[in-house]
Amino acid sequence: MPSGPPIVLTTDFGIVDAYVGVMKGVILSINPQASIIDLSHQVQPQNLQQAAFLLVAGHHYFPPESIHVVVVDPGVGTQRRILLLVTPTARFLAPDNGVLSQVLLAHLPNPPNQPGLVAVPDDCSVYAISNPEYWRSPVSNTFQGRDIFAPVAAHLSLGVGPAELGERVEQVTWLPSPEPVQEGEVIRGLVIYQDHFGNLITNIPERLLPQADQVTVTIKGEIIRGLSRTFHDDPGLSGASLAGKSLLALIGSHGYLEVAVRDGSAALVLPAQVGEPVSVRLNS
Amino acid sequence: MPSGPPIVLTTDFGIVDAYVGVMKGVILSINPQASIIDLSHQVQPQNLQQAAFLLVAGHHYFPPESIHVVVVDPGVGTQRRILLLVTPTARFLAPDNGVLSQVLLAHLPNPPNQPGLVAVPDDCSVYAISNPEYWRSPVSNTFQGRDIFAPVAAHLSLGVGPAELGERVEQVTWLPSPEPVQEGEVIRGLVIYQDHFGNLITNIPERLLPQADQVTVTIKGEIIRGLSRTFHDDPGLSGASLAGKSLLALIGSHGYLEVAVRDGSAALVLPAQVGEPVSVRLNS
Amino acid sequence: MPSGPPIVLTTDFGIVDAYVGVMKGVILSINPQASIIDLSHQVQPQNLQQAAFLLVAGHHYFPPESIHVVVVDPGVGTQRRILLLVTPTARFLAPDNGVLSQVLLAHLPNPPNQPGLVAVPDDCSVYAISNPEYWRSPVSNTFQGRDIFAPVAAHLSLGVGPAELGERVEQVTWLPSPEPVQEGEVIRGLVIYQDHFGNLITNIPERLLPQADQVTVTIKGEIIRGLSRTFHDDPGLSGASLAGKSLLALIGSHGYLEVAVRDGSAALVLPAQVGEPVSVRLNS
Repeated sequence: MPSGPPIVLTTDFGIVDAYVGVMKGVILSINPQASIIDLSHQVQPQNLQQAAFLLVAGHHYFPPESIHVVVVDPGVGTQRRILLLVTPTARFLAPDNGVLSQVLLAHLPNPPNQPGLVAVPDDCSVYAISNPEYWRSPVSNTFQGRDIFAPVAAHLSLGVGPAELGERVEQVTWLPSPEPVQEGEVIRGLVIYQDHFGNLITNIPERLLPQADQVTVTIKGEIIRGLSRTFHDDPGLSGASLAGKSLLALIGSHGYLEVAVRDGSAALVLPAQVGEPVSVRLNS
Repeated sequence: MPSGPPIVLTTDFGIVDAYVGVMKGVILSINPQASIIDLSHQVQPQNLQQAAFLLVAGHHYFPPESIHVVVVDPGVGTQRRILLLVTPTARFLAPDNGVLSQVLLAHLPNPPNQPGLVAVPDDCSVYAISNPEYWRSPVSNTFQGRDIFAPVAAHLSLGVGPAELGERVEQVTWLPSPEPVQEGEVIRGLVIYQDHFGNLITNIPERLLPQADQVTVTIKGEIIRGLSRTFHDDPGLSGASLAGKSLLALIGSHGYLEVAVRDGSAALVLPAQVGEPVSVRLNS
Repeated sequence: MPSGPPIVLTTDFGIVDAYVGVMKGVILSINPQASIIDLSHQVQPQNLQQAAFLLVAGHHYFPPESIHVVVVDPGVGTQRRILLLVTPTARFLAPDNGVLSQVLLAHLPNPPNQPGLVAVPDDCSVYAISNPEYWRSPVSNTFQGRDIFAPVAAHLSLGVGPAELGERVEQVTWLPSPEPVQEGEVIRGLVIYQDHFGNLITNIPERLLPQADQVTVTIKGEIIRGLSRTFHDDPGLSGASLAGKSLLALIGSHGYLEVAVRDGSAALVLPAQVGEPVSVRLNS
């Protein structure tokens, strides 16, 4: 049986080169029974916000104490720290560059609006990885996924405790994500992720949208009346400029408002991408 | 050791988003020892025929009782059923949208020519997944791969019986695939799949082509005389318009006539794609 | 627990088709506890030099006796042999087409400059796979990854000895890779690999570059003075034509000189690709 909880990998390494395979080789050299799962290796190079989204969207569904390893690390080899974040349900090994902010968000009573540092939430603990006893040697300045992240994750999966890996720290780098703004009956948000199907996922959470039939969504001048239940529903009214394609809005599987096109790509049809403003009028 | 037979995943989810990783997380949360294999996540969005081909091409090579999970599901969240098909050698969990038709074909004495419903073959059984005890809760309307398919597959891998998952059904959705037509010494078929190398796989099976040296294949006006044995063979005669590239025809690893180009892509050189007519003259 | 060492797959099969999944199915049908890792399936079709690079770059990081399976095999089905190379630390199953040359290089006192045959190094042994008892039957002429490589790898992982698989051979196909040339204080090499980030990896090894601050690198007319330590360093001097992007040179994680762009792609910015000449002036 696998020894220890899954090690879940999220990187911007792509799948052509040997980088991901090498990390797995290092892990298996330390824990031959490790269970290793790919979350994604197709984060856009150095796109911390995308990695943060994938991580927060994905980590809830893994077994308790899973070890999430995040190597999206433009500062590799510099003085930036490598952190182990321990939450009540999971562990995260990542550079201290803000990529864990979305995971931390759920634990923070007052998340800062500005980039900077944030205090570690009360129900979490964070360690700065500093004990080279658990690393490969020598350590490359350009591929610490291989030389630090992978071996540390493997040792964690074998039961090594966080305190053996480094010192506890009280503050970590914070990268805020755009929050929706509500003014009276209008919510203003934006597209924060575009998925493989071209669905446009916004930052407007389900809890702000209590009545599906009394909602009007506007994106790029197109007006969508009412929320659909599935990608296959007959849509509400949509603009005439969409070349016969039905634009619709719904609460997606992430728990956020999504804009989609039935049997097509909203990203292509509108067209729109991450950052596009989206507004919702309630009781309309 | 892995607990239970492999769970084999085929989806149109792509590999950028967290969707596939999340399904694996859900499976491992239920069966930490599950053996999970990717068949493909690059089915074109909602392309049922492509998924059906990959499934029928691939499933023969897995251990008996492997659990094939197919999430190509444009009707997710609608009233379409989710089926468990049990054949003498494998199990398939898929939406009831025809994606299992190619697998069923081998078990049907008289496959229908038209889309519709087909009776479950005598040597198979089918169950409509309806028991929410084995699902995640709540169930999303847009990502049932996570909330139904993954947990049901995990429970199957742990030994839960089909009858616990839902009621047996007698008919399933049928999506016919184009069959070749033989008239005297001419067989008319078409390209049903284009692979990564640009090889063009037709729907003309090996059993219709008894004598390799007495066959002439025509595609897009190009004439290929005789079948090659390997991709590296000196080809038969080919047209002059192919810019120095050698066009050849052979029986591919799927057991069907393929059109290929030595050290190149037939799809690019001809050019041709899925749907292109191919004819074969026997005893020529 | 996994039975036996990891089986590590490197192919040019891509990830759309079922080919890779089918190989895994065949392996698991023989060794249900096999640990299977993907190194890369995105080798460019039939690009032996790329596969050879990935293999030599990656194999050091896997557990001892790992079984590296390489299916980049334009000659599939012809009389080309399939080889099992056993080194002191690993095993390699590959066609006899030169794809193992980079792995062999480290074991050869006098590697040939020309393509041809090379004697098996003293600390290695090579077997020509010829015993069909360990294959699938019948064997396809076009997909021996499925019918020979996968089952032989599975049997190896279960402890079958090399000598049971075929006869020992004394010579194997050799494909030389371009070596850098040093003339006085100038080293002339070239780009041998472009990675996912657009970093350009050269064939100039670290040992030829003793003093980082006394090195000048020239590529496409651009001059880089001094070696950086990380991708994030302030660069040395770079040309003005690079549109504000900082070109830098460093010793990459493979142990070779790399040309990179901070927060960007050297391959796009220069632009340059595999084969581009790179020169280094020492003590400059």
